Amino acid sequence: MSTKITPQTLKGFRDFLPDQAIKRNWLINKLKNIFEKYGFDPLETPALEYASTLLGKYGQEADKLLYLFEDHGKRKVGLRYDQTVPLARIISQYQNITKPFKRYQIQPVWRAENTQKGRYREFLQCDIDIVGEKSLYADFEIIDLVLKSFKSLGFKKTKVLINDRKNFQNINNKFINSIDKLPKIGEKKVIEELIKKGLEKDKAQSLLNEIKNKKKTFDIEKLFSLLKNQGYQENIDFIYLPTLARGLDYYTGLIFEVIDEDYQAGSLGGGGRYDNLIGLFTGQDMPAVGFAFGFDRIIEAAESLNLLPNIKTNTQVLVTIFSPDLAKISLKIAEFLRKNNINTEVYLNEEAKLDKQLKYANKKNIPYVIIIGPEEAEKNLMKLKNMKTGEQKLIKKGTVPF
Amino acid sequence: MSTKITPQTLKGFRDFLPDQAIKRNWLINKLKNIFEKYGFDPLETPALEYASTLLGKYGQEADKLLYLFEDHGKRKVGLRYDQTVPLARIISQYQNITKPFKRYQIQPVWRAENTQKGRYREFLQCDIDIVGEKSLYADFEIIDLVLKSFKSLGFKKTKVLINDRKNFQNINNKFINSIDKLPKIGEKKVIEELIKKGLEKDKAQSLLNEIKNKKKTFDIEKLFSLLKNQGYQENIDFIYLPTLARGLDYYTGLIFEVIDEDYQAGSLGGGGRYDNLIGLFTGQDMPAVGFAFGFDRIIEAAESLNLLPNIKTNTQVLVTIFSPDLAKISLKIAEFLRKNNINTEVYLNEEAKLDKQLKYANKKNIPYVIIIGPEEAEKNLMKLKNMKTGEQKLIKKGTVPF
Repeated sequence: MSTKITPQTLKGFRDFLPDQAIKRNWLINKLKNIFEKYGFDPLETPALEYASTLLGKYGQEADKLLYLFEDHGKRKVGLRYDQTVPLARIISQYQNITKPFKRYQIQPVWRAENTQKGRYREFLQCDIDIVGEKSLYADFEIIDLVLKSFKSLGFKKTKVLINDRKNFQNINNKFINSIDKLPKIGEKKVIEELIKKGLEKDKAQSLLNEIKNKKKTFDIEKLFSLLKNQGYQENIDFIYLPTLARGLDYYTGLIFEVIDEDYQAGSLGGGGRYDNLIGLFTGQDMPAVGFAFGFDRIIEAAESLNLLPNIKTNTQVLVTIFSPDLAKISLKIAEFLRKNNINTEVYLNEEAKLDKQLKYANKKNIPYVIIIGPEEAEKNLMKLKNMKTGEQKLIKKGTVPF
Repeated sequence: MSTKITPQTLKGFRDFLPDQAIKRNWLINKLKNIFEKYGFDPLETPALEYASTLLGKYGQEADKLLYLFEDHGKRKVGLRYDQTVPLARIISQYQNITKPFKRYQIQPVWRAENTQKGRYREFLQCDIDIVGEKSLYADFEIIDLVLKSFKSLGFKKTKVLINDRKNFQNINNKFINSIDKLPKIGEKKVIEELIKKGLEKDKAQSLLNEIKNKKKTFDIEKLFSLLKNQGYQENIDFIYLPTLARGLDYYTGLIFEVIDEDYQAGSLGGGGRYDNLIGLFTGQDMPAVGFAFGFDRIIEAAESLNLLPNIKTNTQVLVTIFSPDLAKISLKIAEFLRKNNINTEVYLNEEAKLDKQLKYANKKNIPYVIIIGPEEAEKNLMKLKNMKTGEQKLIKKGTVPF
């Protein structure tokens, strides 16, 4: 036990030191708050599931993306890969859950994928789903909630791209995948891909044209009417994009993807209706519609647009200890400040020089410092120092400084 | 893919449906809030660590308690077993972290132990630690914070049992383990155990007496003086217990354990000073003191003492949809209520009978329902129904009902 252990984080995994963790918590709380405003309640499921549960949806060929292993009881288990499979399991396992079941779930998931910029093996998923309601009001509510969420985070040019999977009926999946890329790679490249996948040039062009010109389905018309009633503007807040496909096969109806025009590095989340997936567990159809917020992408976008609070610590003030004989006064003042809802640190060593204590406050980005020297103590005062401006003022001991 | 998947949770793992998740979140938020009041910032580390990191502290014989496996890249990895090892790794890996480093960490840990009542294989750990400060003010702050935490949760008879590991210098660990049990099993059984472990009867009795009569160490005296200065009462809020040992070998100084006299089923958390552990990673001494809140135990205790809010849903009101033609009015009202910070659900199907909608509110324990029928709509009113009392009243459409 005396050999030194090399400290390292696994590739694709991240430590979140306080400055990052504070930002992430800020975002999580904002989202939770708005989810609850719409009547969504929290759900939590275990990190480990039976491998059969995980493989049931993705199939055996997916086991390379899963963290699977045998536990000490020889059970084949695996780490949560998404939050949709656990949700489906929950719906099936607890049959008496009141439906529609509206839940949010914010937990990490694990994927044994190749790492690349912005791709991690452990990342936070942030999902909202409505299970057990086939009415379009559920789809509308999800989109309304998504738009309100981004607005509450400070995003200004959020737009929901919307399509109906019914637009792709009788079209081969491999062609759909190419057509989906239209906004990214342009028409010429889509045609090239379609040709590579076996279509003749004319056929490729006519297939693309056919899809580009698809009229809105009945469901889209109704959804758009609800969105307009709520004050959203077509083509600004939401837009019909008949080539939008979204990768996952399990969508059955409306699908949506969110972008912000101030952030070009990719979509900030996506979702849609999947009325057949939960049936894998329940053995009977169970309509569902949901949305997954791309947490890391949103953090990145919010950071690049300066929407995140620039907080390095939650601490508002450091109470210094001038000398051992004055330490107990400092402790009392700290208690008073905390009682008045001010996040307060006390310097934890009575023998440190004041200079060292001020340096500590600076390093930790604590905005204010309180000093109680012998003079201040005698006059029942405390000195409040603004660490940014250097400004100092004397205030009464029993007053809340801000 | 057409075979039904059997839905089941692994033994020792738990789903938290909304009613439980809401309670847990309430507790987590209370604790975070008070941790931040004392200047502790959040830290998060990955679920997976290198196996060598995990085994470095616990030794090879611990691998039966760990979830270890090989990842796709043939790395030996394992699930987080506690939050102290990751903390030690962090301190070593990011040498420029400002010290004292005060962090809280609230994440699940995984232990492949035998399950029994109140023991799980996945459970939430909730730790506060101060790293890099050897002054007793750090120990004092931890205890002060612990007492304030339990008070803020509504516990009334919280008591911190305190001892100094220096009281056990030169005494064999196996004897200490028996003496530690004194409050639980009584003097007679302790003596029996000591005899079984090889002491003669006289020696056993005199060893126990010797420890029971140990005078307070200098550190304990100083700590008690600080606690008294802060208004805590000896033997009520805190007490010297010279037989307290706490299992873990790595403690080096003061140790503490929290009980509440209204709850007899066990301690609610424990901690102490461990000045040598982090050195396993850093290769140099790094003083540290911390405390782990027993999250599940606290939930259980708080539940038995009726300290948890009796909330089954976060939703405050359900806005019903009287008929398809009135649906859009309901959606507008819901938006208005949400803007005014009321957690509001809309019934998501315009064709459901009102009766069904009220039943849904009842099942979900939503306390209020709003109804806008043709009459109300015409007069710009809405009907507010208290689902508990049955009381109904008409209010203006543009007013916040509570």
